[in-house]
Amino acid sequence: MKKLINRPENIVNELIEGFLLVNKNSIKRIGNLNVVARKEAPVMGQVGIVIGGGAGHEPVFLEYIGKNMADVEVHGNIFTAPNPKSILEAIKAADGKAGVILLYNNYAGDVLNFGVAQEQARSEGIIIDTIIINDEISSAPKQFMEDRRGTTSDHIIIKIAGAAAQSGLDFESLKTLLKKAIYNSRSLGVSLSACTLPETSLATFTIEEGKIEFGMGLHGEAGIKKVDMMDADNTAITILEMLIKDLPFSSGDEVVAVVNGYGSTTRMEMFIVARKIHSFLNEKGIKIYSTEVGEFCTSQEMAGISITLVKLDEEIKKYYDMSADSPGYKKF
Amino acid sequence: MKKLINRPENIVNELIEGFLLVNKNSIKRIGNLNVVARKEAPVMGQVGIVIGGGAGHEPVFLEYIGKNMADVEVHGNIFTAPNPKSILEAIKAADGKAGVILLYNNYAGDVLNFGVAQEQARSEGIIIDTIIINDEISSAPKQFMEDRRGTTSDHIIIKIAGAAAQSGLDFESLKTLLKKAIYNSRSLGVSLSACTLPETSLATFTIEEGKIEFGMGLHGEAGIKKVDMMDADNTAITILEMLIKDLPFSSGDEVVAVVNGYGSTTRMEMFIVARKIHSFLNEKGIKIYSTEVGEFCTSQEMAGISITLVKLDEEIKKYYDMSADSPGYKKF
Repeated sequence: MKKLINRPENIVNELIEGFLLVNKNSIKRIGNLNVVARKEAPVMGQVGIVIGGGAGHEPVFLEYIGKNMADVEVHGNIFTAPNPKSILEAIKAADGKAGVILLYNNYAGDVLNFGVAQEQARSEGIIIDTIIINDEISSAPKQFMEDRRGTTSDHIIIKIAGAAAQSGLDFESLKTLLKKAIYNSRSLGVSLSACTLPETSLATFTIEEGKIEFGMGLHGEAGIKKVDMMDADNTAITILEMLIKDLPFSSGDEVVAVVNGYGSTTRMEMFIVARKIHSFLNEKGIKIYSTEVGEFCTSQEMAGISITLVKLDEEIKKYYDMSADSPGYKKF
Repeated sequence: MKKLINRPENIVNELIEGFLLVNKNSIKRIGNLNVVARKEAPVMGQVGIVIGGGAGHEPVFLEYIGKNMADVEVHGNIFTAPNPKSILEAIKAADGKAGVILLYNNYAGDVLNFGVAQEQARSEGIIIDTIIINDEISSAPKQFMEDRRGTTSDHIIIKIAGAAAQSGLDFESLKTLLKKAIYNSRSLGVSLSACTLPETSLATFTIEEGKIEFGMGLHGEAGIKKVDMMDADNTAITILEMLIKDLPFSSGDEVVAVVNGYGSTTRMEMFIVARKIHSFLNEKGIKIYSTEVGEFCTSQEMAGISITLVKLDEEIKKYYDMSADSPGYKKF
């Protein structure tokens, strides 16, 4: 796979430089690090929201800072957790003396590095805690939920976190809200083709012609079943049946549904999947409050989609409903 | 290339059905046709903006109807102009008795079918005229500008059209504004890989490993030069040098720059290209008022990007600056 890059070792730095030039009116860089913040951060008296993770999944997490979104983002190298030093600077850039929440996906490298930075921040007197996103249902059984990976509920969780923080919700209430929103979020995807690492142009795995794989991770982690190619409706049904059984989502529930494209999937395909989500959930008596279609969390040029369902209650809905303005996600 | 579809003959209808379910609060279907409109249309006393073209390039044109965007969209089959009957219904759905403007890309099938529908509408007493987008500089020499294809300035032109129409600009002034905005818009792209037709999964063309092609059309139309793969900076320079020579853009000009991804190109690559656009135009004394990065006009899973420059003046900037809310493009 050919990629429009310059020297492979400069990919992430050039990505950040381009991102800053494009968003120069709203985003600033912290130090000379791969750490970016909305211009207003830190806001004194508000809980600061720090997000981050490996590069290569844009818009996640880089582009989700802004109005009613996160305050600061720390970007790692391709598919690699950011380093503790950068995370510590991100924490300081978000610290409005009302607590800082680290919000990221559940991967070992991230847990390790964010954990180290959190301890350092605490030792410097910053009020801080961690909330880990673990919405991907195929990566561990439900009784080991804390082992599940974080995936494509990210932008919804960040949106709720940012809206609540910028509305002035206090540190403890915000953590409780986010734990609930994450618990209510379930995601599962299907991959049709592999992604390549941009530095080497080599595929991280292969999926044979005529096959698709459910539950594959964003970095090529093995999925739960590889099957013959199915049509869009049956693919959506396969995912939805596993999703609704897992929480479970039941008749009378109200949800936000997300169709996420992994990279080379067309919006045409995403809308065809969205169509089936509506008829399927309608049959189950589950009400769709809102459907979001787009590339929210990608894996380079991987083909495939994931579906995320987030069960709403009045509190989650209140923050979901607020407008949001970030480079990667805008909502009126 | 595997695609998440059902029966190939239902692709466009299912796309429209999914699109309507996702956007049920803001978009309505006209008749049982592949014609969609913002709920408010037609607005009496305002010029109606009708856009449309072949499917397969989403979000173009389907998703560009809404606040300060177009009123009605008419969608063809994959890479195929919509039929005159559907276009005529689109015109009627946009007719607020203050004139209707047909705004679409310069392709022979579209010109023919929109032309037939326009004549029918006129014979029924509707005030109507056509503005054709022809921003792609490699498809004909400058002295034959009217033969050039329309490509990736679409969403900027539609945004200006919608903002002006919804601000109450009259029919004749609006046509003059749009002709100026289109004249000021220049686009050129580079393709790294082919796209496949979703009905057949067959590629429309091939680009050899290690090669890239400048000026290729959205449907695989031949480009102007196939060269060895270059890095992102030199690719951007090659495009920018041709773009600025063409209008020409000169020192002191102010522009909106668009980096459009054709399908499987990552946002990482687009930001790396945006970075070079900034340094290149800065050296030339051309001021970037705003940079937009995203998939605005796609060609299935084709890899590559196009760059669009739109020269601003006070009038164009006024309408560009207004907020916009459509499924495919939001601006605060």
